[in-house]
Amino acid sequence: MKLYEQLADEIEAAVRRGVFTAGERIASVRQASQQHGVSIKTVLHAYALLESRGILETRPQSGYFVRAKPRSGEARGERGGVAGAMAVASEVDVSRLVLSTLRSIRAHGAVPFGSPYPDTEPFPWRRINQYANAIARRHASWNLIDDLPPGNPELIRQIARRYAENGVPVDPGEIVITVGATEAINLSLQAVAKPGDTVAVESPTFYAMLHAIERLGMRAIEVPTHPADGIDIDALAQIIGEGKIAACMVMPNFQNPLGFQMPDERKRRLVDLLSMHDIPVIENDVYHELHFGDARPSTLKNFDTKGLVLHCASFSKSLTASYRIGWAMPGRYRAQVEKLKFLNTLTTPSVPQVAVADYLRQDGYDRHLRRVRKLYKQQSRIMMAMVERFFPAGTRTSAPQGGYVLWVELPERVDSMLLYRAALAEGITVGPGYMFSTRNAFSHFIRLNYSYPWTPQSEAALQRLGQLVGELDARARET
Amino acid sequence: MKLYEQLADEIEAAVRRGVFTAGERIASVRQASQQHGVSIKTVLHAYALLESRGILETRPQSGYFVRAKPRSGEARGERGGVAGAMAVASEVDVSRLVLSTLRSIRAHGAVPFGSPYPDTEPFPWRRINQYANAIARRHASWNLIDDLPPGNPELIRQIARRYAENGVPVDPGEIVITVGATEAINLSLQAVAKPGDTVAVESPTFYAMLHAIERLGMRAIEVPTHPADGIDIDALAQIIGEGKIAACMVMPNFQNPLGFQMPDERKRRLVDLLSMHDIPVIENDVYHELHFGDARPSTLKNFDTKGLVLHCASFSKSLTASYRIGWAMPGRYRAQVEKLKFLNTLTTPSVPQVAVADYLRQDGYDRHLRRVRKLYKQQSRIMMAMVERFFPAGTRTSAPQGGYVLWVELPERVDSMLLYRAALAEGITVGPGYMFSTRNAFSHFIRLNYSYPWTPQSEAALQRLGQLVGELDARARET
Repeated sequence: MKLYEQLADEIEAAVRRGVFTAGERIASVRQASQQHGVSIKTVLHAYALLESRGILETRPQSGYFVRAKPRSGEARGERGGVAGAMAVASEVDVSRLVLSTLRSIRAHGAVPFGSPYPDTEPFPWRRINQYANAIARRHASWNLIDDLPPGNPELIRQIARRYAENGVPVDPGEIVITVGATEAINLSLQAVAKPGDTVAVESPTFYAMLHAIERLGMRAIEVPTHPADGIDIDALAQIIGEGKIAACMVMPNFQNPLGFQMPDERKRRLVDLLSMHDIPVIENDVYHELHFGDARPSTLKNFDTKGLVLHCASFSKSLTASYRIGWAMPGRYRAQVEKLKFLNTLTTPSVPQVAVADYLRQDGYDRHLRRVRKLYKQQSRIMMAMVERFFPAGTRTSAPQGGYVLWVELPERVDSMLLYRAALAEGITVGPGYMFSTRNAFSHFIRLNYSYPWTPQSEAALQRLGQLVGELDARARET
Repeated sequence: MKLYEQLADEIEAAVRRGVFTAGERIASVRQASQQHGVSIKTVLHAYALLESRGILETRPQSGYFVRAKPRSGEARGERGGVAGAMAVASEVDVSRLVLSTLRSIRAHGAVPFGSPYPDTEPFPWRRINQYANAIARRHASWNLIDDLPPGNPELIRQIARRYAENGVPVDPGEIVITVGATEAINLSLQAVAKPGDTVAVESPTFYAMLHAIERLGMRAIEVPTHPADGIDIDALAQIIGEGKIAACMVMPNFQNPLGFQMPDERKRRLVDLLSMHDIPVIENDVYHELHFGDARPSTLKNFDTKGLVLHCASFSKSLTASYRIGWAMPGRYRAQVEKLKFLNTLTTPSVPQVAVADYLRQDGYDRHLRRVRKLYKQQSRIMMAMVERFFPAGTRTSAPQGGYVLWVELPERVDSMLLYRAALAEGITVGPGYMFSTRNAFSHFIRLNYSYPWTPQSEAALQRLGQLVGELDARARET
């Protein structure tokens, strides 16, 4: 094959893959000659060939443009669509199911009952963006090394301050800033356990916990968890007695998906039990600010005397989802977590850290939180009432004490994956119970998000969801 | 202890830790009563006690303020100082040494010869910030799930486009956006090898490669590397023949610290050798845009027929350091890398992704790069000439073909850690050779950064560095 044919084939392939899209101008002959290290003549030949193939066209005084339209304008854009999400059917492992489910939520116009994220519309994103802009104007440039682990000192101080104000004694020197709570949990787990180890989790458990365990080649053991009281401490004691668990991962406040707040006395018992056996516990506390009661709940940190609690949290659920600022307070494992943070992603971007710190210092955060808590509490009541109204007999719901998700137990015959797919086909998303266990223990459960405003549309969607549950139940009864 | 004494102790501890700083207003009596769940009376007692201890003071009409000044305003701020960095002396493992070295660069006014990062002053940060601001204004809010892995479609397309224009055939569907190249390298390594495996690296090697290996519990085997031609392929072939290596990690273009560009013929031989044995290779190509020659260099991807090359790169070294946007093109390992990305940090922040995509589409990027390449090329020549002028006989330097670091071999008796500490005490940073090997193979080498403008100050600093080398050499000769 001649050189110009080779070049033409290469460019055509790029157009067909969506690298260059219809109507776009491509490199001039001179530029292309430099870029590909070939002569002007070769490029002219190649471009002429592509014109004859209908791939390029010339426009007078302007250059060469892509003419073909081999696929849609956005590379991989089709993956967000409903059709793409339907491919979930044969998936088995939890992380693939979760990723597929999250993608389905991006589907245009879908009712986001399945979303794990809050509606960010009531969040003070405008203020935070203003701070970010001001920072960008203030600093000529921002260097990678300005906020090396553990992170921006002022942000760390502001975080410590909020804890202190809520009666959680925190040494700012313990805090390590991370890329969301996801990274904090990953690093914490890696700091306390090694591949092959067994880690105790709640059942149902928030799937990010299962992801962390999967990613590090560990094994999960699921401990029965009460919808109002949290992890069964006696069952956990038995598991500890039977064999070796290297660590425990829990979500004592507004657990996802159950929504409970573990009573203080049980938090203390849990920490005491684990301390007695020197077992570290990773506490995922991302919903701590979203309490429906008057006082901010205690954390496991309040009862920790041996530095065994690795507390993880973030601003993603209550302040800004897009900035991805989380943190870990890893107790006696602080040095390891800081080092792993450095090895994992080097540093968390600076500007978002400083913007959030500015917001916390100057705007308070409390007024926003008071509004959101009230909103979520109201909407939780509406969602509970509506499920009761529209879903068939045999349906039961959790009674969330904070956060923004409702856990719904459907009649036993109803498979939540069938419901997920039937609902998705009608533009409604739900979180299938399969995501919350590796043992398929919650096949007839779903999680619903109530952070979005209640509208006639969402009411109609929930009503339709109830009908689908009824239909699936009837069909299952026949077979 | 009485409840109010307990509360007072708690607040005093927080002040002493720097959570509340001098002059700051603390929670009102009413707020504190709510926050701590105690009576108004208890708070009043506690605050009075703190006043008597000289910790708080009241100001009429304003409330309670922190009076004590137990430490400096910024929590942990002292770590950036020279004194903190000096603590490096007894550190042994590479990642701790690197983190200490990076921290030392933050020292006020230090000459940044030791920095691994480019001077970002000539970067188009103003333009990119403008795009980011425009995006923030355009969107009411930005959700976590908008740019789930693999990442923002338009950014992916723009990246693919640049490769295509430079003769590297890329399927946009192969690209996964990451938090900098650091994450791309970590995920790639985890996708191809498991704990306990052995990974071949260059020697000297860029320490982020060693970090990734350390983090995943693998072992590194260092392969001799020629300062101009790159990794010794015959030596690598022998190592492959002798036993099992699971993967190979290299930096074929403008390697850090050597600065070479591996000739095409050797790139091809390397890929062929590894393909023959089905060994995946992680290609760190973060400096690809910073070539001194006319054409952008080829990548290992150009010679890969089996999908064994996992190509990693970022914008941090050539466009924007603070946005932390990197990517992986993991060949046949794409699905694993995308999944690991999701498990590791869920998603890369959206706004920076879109801002960079907007910049690439609308501003080009080429004009900026042409300017920076010319600058770095000139400054590399100056730095080489100045080292020759100021350093004692027996000093040799690399001849970088791109990037912005110079590798300097000192007289054999000179220990680079001693030089590092002596220089730091005078406000000059260097990269000690110990960072680039786990075997202390480069104890008398240093790495110098020439991305910063050459000034009388930097000239004086380099001259002083040369004197220090001479003094250390003389002292070593005496003993």
